[in-house]
Amino acid sequence: MKFVKEFNEGEHIEGQFLVSNISRGVNSLGAGYLNVELRDCTASISCKKWEVGPDDEKIFAVGNVINATLDIIKYRDSLQGKIVNAVLVDQEYIDVARFVAAPPIKKEILIENFNKFYLSVKDKDCKTLLDYFINKYKDKLFVYPAASSIHHEYSSGLLMHITSMCKMGEFIAENYPNINRDLLITGIILHDIGKLKELEGPVVFHYSLEGKLLGHISIMASEIKEASNSLGLTGETPLLLEHMILSHHGQLEYGSPVLPLTSEAFALHLIDNVDSRLTILNKALDDTTVGEFTNKIYPLDGRQFYKHK
Amino acid sequence: MKFVKEFNEGEHIEGQFLVSNISRGVNSLGAGYLNVELRDCTASISCKKWEVGPDDEKIFAVGNVINATLDIIKYRDSLQGKIVNAVLVDQEYIDVARFVAAPPIKKEILIENFNKFYLSVKDKDCKTLLDYFINKYKDKLFVYPAASSIHHEYSSGLLMHITSMCKMGEFIAENYPNINRDLLITGIILHDIGKLKELEGPVVFHYSLEGKLLGHISIMASEIKEASNSLGLTGETPLLLEHMILSHHGQLEYGSPVLPLTSEAFALHLIDNVDSRLTILNKALDDTTVGEFTNKIYPLDGRQFYKHK
Amino acid sequence: MKFVKEFNEGEHIEGQFLVSNISRGVNSLGAGYLNVELRDCTASISCKKWEVGPDDEKIFAVGNVINATLDIIKYRDSLQGKIVNAVLVDQEYIDVARFVAAPPIKKEILIENFNKFYLSVKDKDCKTLLDYFINKYKDKLFVYPAASSIHHEYSSGLLMHITSMCKMGEFIAENYPNINRDLLITGIILHDIGKLKELEGPVVFHYSLEGKLLGHISIMASEIKEASNSLGLTGETPLLLEHMILSHHGQLEYGSPVLPLTSEAFALHLIDNVDSRLTILNKALDDTTVGEFTNKIYPLDGRQFYKHK
Amino acid sequence: MKFVKEFNEGEHIEGQFLVSNISRGVNSLGAGYLNVELRDCTASISCKKWEVGPDDEKIFAVGNVINATLDIIKYRDSLQGKIVNAVLVDQEYIDVARFVAAPPIKKEILIENFNKFYLSVKDKDCKTLLDYFINKYKDKLFVYPAASSIHHEYSSGLLMHITSMCKMGEFIAENYPNINRDLLITGIILHDIGKLKELEGPVVFHYSLEGKLLGHISIMASEIKEASNSLGLTGETPLLLEHMILSHHGQLEYGSPVLPLTSEAFALHLIDNVDSRLTILNKALDDTTVGEFTNKIYPLDGRQFYKHK
Amino acid sequence: MKFVKEFNEGEHIEGQFLVSNISRGVNSLGAGYLNVELRDCTASISCKKWEVGPDDEKIFAVGNVINATLDIIKYRDSLQGKIVNAVLVDQEYIDVARFVAAPPIKKEILIENFNKFYLSVKDKDCKTLLDYFINKYKDKLFVYPAASSIHHEYSSGLLMHITSMCKMGEFIAENYPNINRDLLITGIILHDIGKLKELEGPVVFHYSLEGKLLGHISIMASEIKEASNSLGLTGETPLLLEHMILSHHGQLEYGSPVLPLTSEAFALHLIDNVDSRLTILNKALDDTTVGEFTNKIYPLDGRQFYKHK
Amino acid sequence: MKFVKEFNEGEHIEGQFLVSNISRGVNSLGAGYLNVELRDCTASISCKKWEVGPDDEKIFAVGNVINATLDIIKYRDSLQGKIVNAVLVDQEYIDVARFVAAPPIKKEILIENFNKFYLSVKDKDCKTLLDYFINKYKDKLFVYPAASSIHHEYSSGLLMHITSMCKMGEFIAENYPNINRDLLITGIILHDIGKLKELEGPVVFHYSLEGKLLGHISIMASEIKEASNSLGLTGETPLLLEHMILSHHGQLEYGSPVLPLTSEAFALHLIDNVDSRLTILNKALDDTTVGEFTNKIYPLDGRQFYKHK
Repeated sequence: MKFVKEFNEGEHIEGQFLVSNISRGVNSLGAGYLNVELRDCTASISCKKWEVGPDDEKIFAVGNVINATLDIIKYRDSLQGKIVNAVLVDQEYIDVARFVAAPPIKKEILIENFNKFYLSVKDKDCKTLLDYFINKYKDKLFVYPAASSIHHEYSSGLLMHITSMCKMGEFIAENYPNINRDLLITGIILHDIGKLKELEGPVVFHYSLEGKLLGHISIMASEIKEASNSLGLTGETPLLLEHMILSHHGQLEYGSPVLPLTSEAFALHLIDNVDSRLTILNKALDDTTVGEFTNKIYPLDGRQFYKHK
Repeated sequence: MKFVKEFNEGEHIEGQFLVSNISRGVNSLGAGYLNVELRDCTASISCKKWEVGPDDEKIFAVGNVINATLDIIKYRDSLQGKIVNAVLVDQEYIDVARFVAAPPIKKEILIENFNKFYLSVKDKDCKTLLDYFINKYKDKLFVYPAASSIHHEYSSGLLMHITSMCKMGEFIAENYPNINRDLLITGIILHDIGKLKELEGPVVFHYSLEGKLLGHISIMASEIKEASNSLGLTGETPLLLEHMILSHHGQLEYGSPVLPLTSEAFALHLIDNVDSRLTILNKALDDTTVGEFTNKIYPLDGRQFYKHK
Repeated sequence: MKFVKEFNEGEHIEGQFLVSNISRGVNSLGAGYLNVELRDCTASISCKKWEVGPDDEKIFAVGNVINATLDIIKYRDSLQGKIVNAVLVDQEYIDVARFVAAPPIKKEILIENFNKFYLSVKDKDCKTLLDYFINKYKDKLFVYPAASSIHHEYSSGLLMHITSMCKMGEFIAENYPNINRDLLITGIILHDIGKLKELEGPVVFHYSLEGKLLGHISIMASEIKEASNSLGLTGETPLLLEHMILSHHGQLEYGSPVLPLTSEAFALHLIDNVDSRLTILNKALDDTTVGEFTNKIYPLDGRQFYKHK
Repeated sequence: MKFVKEFNEGEHIEGQFLVSNISRGVNSLGAGYLNVELRDCTASISCKKWEVGPDDEKIFAVGNVINATLDIIKYRDSLQGKIVNAVLVDQEYIDVARFVAAPPIKKEILIENFNKFYLSVKDKDCKTLLDYFINKYKDKLFVYPAASSIHHEYSSGLLMHITSMCKMGEFIAENYPNINRDLLITGIILHDIGKLKELEGPVVFHYSLEGKLLGHISIMASEIKEASNSLGLTGETPLLLEHMILSHHGQLEYGSPVLPLTSEAFALHLIDNVDSRLTILNKALDDTTVGEFTNKIYPLDGRQFYKHK
Repeated sequence: MKFVKEFNEGEHIEGQFLVSNISRGVNSLGAGYLNVELRDCTASISCKKWEVGPDDEKIFAVGNVINATLDIIKYRDSLQGKIVNAVLVDQEYIDVARFVAAPPIKKEILIENFNKFYLSVKDKDCKTLLDYFINKYKDKLFVYPAASSIHHEYSSGLLMHITSMCKMGEFIAENYPNINRDLLITGIILHDIGKLKELEGPVVFHYSLEGKLLGHISIMASEIKEASNSLGLTGETPLLLEHMILSHHGQLEYGSPVLPLTSEAFALHLIDNVDSRLTILNKALDDTTVGEFTNKIYPLDGRQFYKHK
Repeated sequence: MKFVKEFNEGEHIEGQFLVSNISRGVNSLGAGYLNVELRDCTASISCKKWEVGPDDEKIFAVGNVINATLDIIKYRDSLQGKIVNAVLVDQEYIDVARFVAAPPIKKEILIENFNKFYLSVKDKDCKTLLDYFINKYKDKLFVYPAASSIHHEYSSGLLMHITSMCKMGEFIAENYPNINRDLLITGIILHDIGKLKELEGPVVFHYSLEGKLLGHISIMASEIKEASNSLGLTGETPLLLEHMILSHHGQLEYGSPVLPLTSEAFALHLIDNVDSRLTILNKALDDTTVGEFTNKIYPLDGRQFYKHK
């Protein structure tokens, strides 16, 4: 099935769409109709549902995924869809690939890279915790984007962020002394797993109640504490990992309740910062012509970067 | 036994002291001696240990509590102690009352007031958590000061801070709608219990490793999470309490990873702020003559307040 | 007479309205007409004045209160008013209750509560100044809202803010030492009276020239100085009250030229802060369903609060 | 009589000194003595008072001006004074010229320049207020320094600051439109007069209680209000002047409760800023060798300026 | 030829316009047309180009200057232009006076004043550099506005800013010691010349690539360095001027990489600040009725100033 | 010859020392002597010069390197040096290795690593500029520390900082797209070369006049501009490099007049940040025992880091 940005005038389309906006209108004869915005991961299209039935309020709610049949027409120079019919799609039948962009690297390769780093950790306590959390969150971990709206915003984005950070973590641990490689790799793998509880998906991501009231940092720190106790871990490792999670935003005003106070916590923060910033910048440069400036990049202070020749 | 600020020239004193400073000297004949500063909760006194024995390094370490015999002399207009002999005191025999000031209200009355608020909480989940934590931390909770160095800095200071806040919590819950009284009182009682793990005592308070790497806010939030799980609590109450703990400093830059987002969390923060500030101010005004300004009060922006007529 | 939010299609309405917006239109025949937005304290309605007469420019000016007759019709799913005729209402005949929401507590009870606190002040200098200012500003004091647009924004809102603060002032003076109760109550009653000169009303509040160039804080401080001189008051009380007024915003960047430097000035600032914040929050929670978040509350940093179950 | 920095070993001196520091000592025989620091506007000298009499505590209090007889000796490479005898000097007999540096321009010339600007103001309301305040504060106005410790810190410093600002005010009013010359000159003359009540002197300046609790800005704004009322001034001039006083620090965080909102208020702030900064800088450069950097200039952000060739 | 704000219904106009906005429309018959906004320095007018030809995309691009023939009609109470025909205007034939407002003082007088200051500089090194730069940039220097969008925003605005600052520089150098007059005047003349490379014109000013990546401050500092080397200047003067350019924004956060550290650099910053702020304010007051407040003045913190009676 | 921290009581030492402090004393017989602090890169020692000769003022000036003969004695438990004789050492004979610590990696290996990166740059314009600057600054570049007092503070510290950054630059360029490897490596090599003119040495580093008035960032940007012009380089490369130098501090308030706006400028800033911070941290951890916290690390916000087990 075609994606929205591939639609042409005169086509008759059937497939899954996300309802992204809705408003009511009244035509010149006084009859009500619905303005419905439908979208997938490529674009959105304005549609009309002319005869409003009793179930339509439930079907056309923002955030729903529906299976719709559309006639594509042209109106004032733009394409518009006439909704012939539409039904709700059950969560389990949603075709996620239609709604979240594919990662630039194939998911299988990302998982392979991820596993290489995961299995390379030999420290016993680190390995115990990694086994526990990867087993617990594997499904979401391999699918979720890295953030609700900023960087690595495609499916498996978190996985890509983690493997990219692991690579840099390996580099840092090899080139700077006083850094425990296994602890750093473990912290990198675990640092954003709290987001899997903070965000709810799988298609339109929004913050869960727990996410809003606690934040992913505190959620994950508590999980490490609880898991360590139940797994019978003693020694400093659980405390050091909990500290790494709590401090990885690097500043109190960015939501870390403590500042990094170990070399691995400091390295984790620096690596997270470099990887997320360069990823955001690269995405913007990819969308820009050589010799031009990017649009304003809001997570980088709204700056416009120059793509040189 | 007399307190340090009651010593007079010529007296012969025997009792417990905290070693608060230490340096080595050499007399005119080339013999070494020790300059030892000893203190209790009233004042400190400079002392000399003239003949240095092999165990003296262990005995006269900063932070130790020792049992010493002193001759009090006058030197350059100040009192000075000559240490006749000294032995280490075991933790269990330390007479805490000599080192931490007594609270302005008798401890028994504080406990009675505290219990009144504690027992008034009827909400089932709140009560379950209160029972659990008060039982777990009762010993320290009734003895610890409210902070390592700022407000309510006498023994049972935390208890006094909690009961004073409970009183204001009761007032607020009665006078402003949309506030659940039991939830607010429970949050007030639990909000600083993390400090009992953050600080280690009992005489010279310093931050524990866990306190430095996690902070009392995260320590207590994790404890509530774990306790709720193990006590089988479901529903919103544990989440709401965890949120109250995490947000009670009111600002990210003061170490709260999330801002208050419920009425009880907001009230807890406001009450904590008012009680601690007025307590600090009152203590400074108590030490000031009418018609004069206080010394600089550092936790209140270094301001000097005027004690009017 | 009905309020705007109670209007129905087909009704014929006559009553007072505030002109809140105005623009000119031209119909398909080239004839001019007026788009007029009319409102009361419940809602606004778009209206058309089809035949524009020579006086209409004066009548339909933003901020005017008019007496209008309307036919209520439905246009594109919304109600619209056709203005049959309209005349200006003299200031003295304005029915204020139509334009400013009623307070949640009856005005008579608010005045009774206020008088109880006012009459309880026994300190002679405090009482002299209270008598002077309450006599001078009684009319406005009992009617004005607490602020032009933020908290306690209904009629008698300032009165409600004052009595609510007095209650907390009483609590604070009873529970914390070094606070002179009469001085604190007097400061609470007087602290915002400068706003009665800063804002001009009575229906649409806007800042007076004096309000913009001096601010309510300096206006009131000067008034206390002048009144004390003319009433022959000596001693510290006038100075202490002037200081309380000047410092009650608590920070230089919030417009206080000096910081609170007495216990009563500090308490006044803290009480003002707690009462106004909890009032803003409660209003937002009242408009929110249980289990949902409020809209962004701009005076509380734009936060959205959760109304728990 | 010589100034302190002119003293030589072996001299016998008699004259007025300010007691600027005091501490007690005990000699090798156990007898007490006093270490007294005495100063005038050129330097300070350490002195000993060997035999301490019963009145000495009252005579040698910090801030006192005494008439003392000294023997000047040399001790460890420095000059030291032996106090032969000393008596307190009554306020009225203090020789101010010994304690505050003379201005770089003769006082008579400063007054002449000042009067030229004062008398040039023709606007009736401005003139009425100038007459009132210059008459009221003439004595102090012609003598006080411009600040307790920063710029124009010699006698008549405020007068010099005012005349220098008037000159620039004249320049600004001539070269930029929309500025009322008489209003600006009046604002310049009055802007710091509140300091004459904020500071108490005449030798060691300290903040008065009124100065600390209200600040010179609010003190002067109230005075203008009161004076205008009692002088029967109506119209905008008193309000505009009050606004100029209140806003002349230019920023809320520098203690102005309102920002400049008229051209004259804005000009006053800019002129005050330029004159005080250039004066501070010039003083520092005067004390510096060509080709060197000044000491840190704290009121100019601690910067060190280069005195070029 | 008339300016846009002088157009009347029914007129037939021919002349140069700047294309300031463009969008496509489709009429009721499905034919495309262009919505074109045209402007000069007085106002803008909405126009329609009904029949879109093959070259129209190139002609009607935002930023182009075109020679157009318009019929002026009235549509919905506003004037509208019907574009009869249009051709591009070559850069060299653009009539700049139509697009940039004339300065309040005649250009010839500005140049005369400028030359008076320029020729008054006698210091040999200063004169050498002035000769070099004025010769190099004369054309643009006498024409450019002072900034892309803020102060002195008419043609020759930079020239007016420079001469106005020179006048104040003369005043400052005469009235404050330790300031080298020739160095200050030279710094004033050169301080913003970097803008002539930072901005590209001549009609719609936008930042050049060099301007965006280096900024006018660094551009000019490098030019002084290079010119001094090639002109064989030794001694401190080039360094002092380079420092004045680099530091004239006065604060790191305003883009100066170093703070002013000489008296002339400090004076340059203060004079630039006063002249640009008073100029902005005066322009806003000129557009305001007596007794009213100006619109928000964004470069002055968004304040609204009062134009008093 | 021994280093200062290896001295023992009774030894007779001869060698080079840096005069790091000086003060005059008078002995009990009234004769003057000098207190001289001498140091090398390991420690400092207090010395006395008892008989002060006419040349001693010139010899014992702070910052001088002298050749001195000392007798080492013990005084009050500390070692002290008696200066038997001393002469000034000419700049060219200074044994730098005594005063600046050796780098942790041998200088030869650092140079080898550096050359590997230098020679790997193939881009023609980059290579031309690298050849020019490395040739011009080779001597100092291979010897200077990385900063006057913070990170990489041993000899060849700048070289070590550059090679360490090059390594990370290589990693970044390989792992993130849109980054020109040669441009990044060139920017890394050149970014701090301005410090070689900003700091003057070779033993006690202090800021040159040019360094203070311009800063190393502007110095180097101008040099690139001038060199590019004289080398006849056109195209974007010189502009991009100049931009990288100007922006590499990453924030206006850290002295960069523009923010990074190209991918290489952004990467340079991030790499500089990571390398300098991890180097500072590692140095502090090297000086700390396992299980303890470091001293306050001022360039890392004064934090104390934990060296875990």
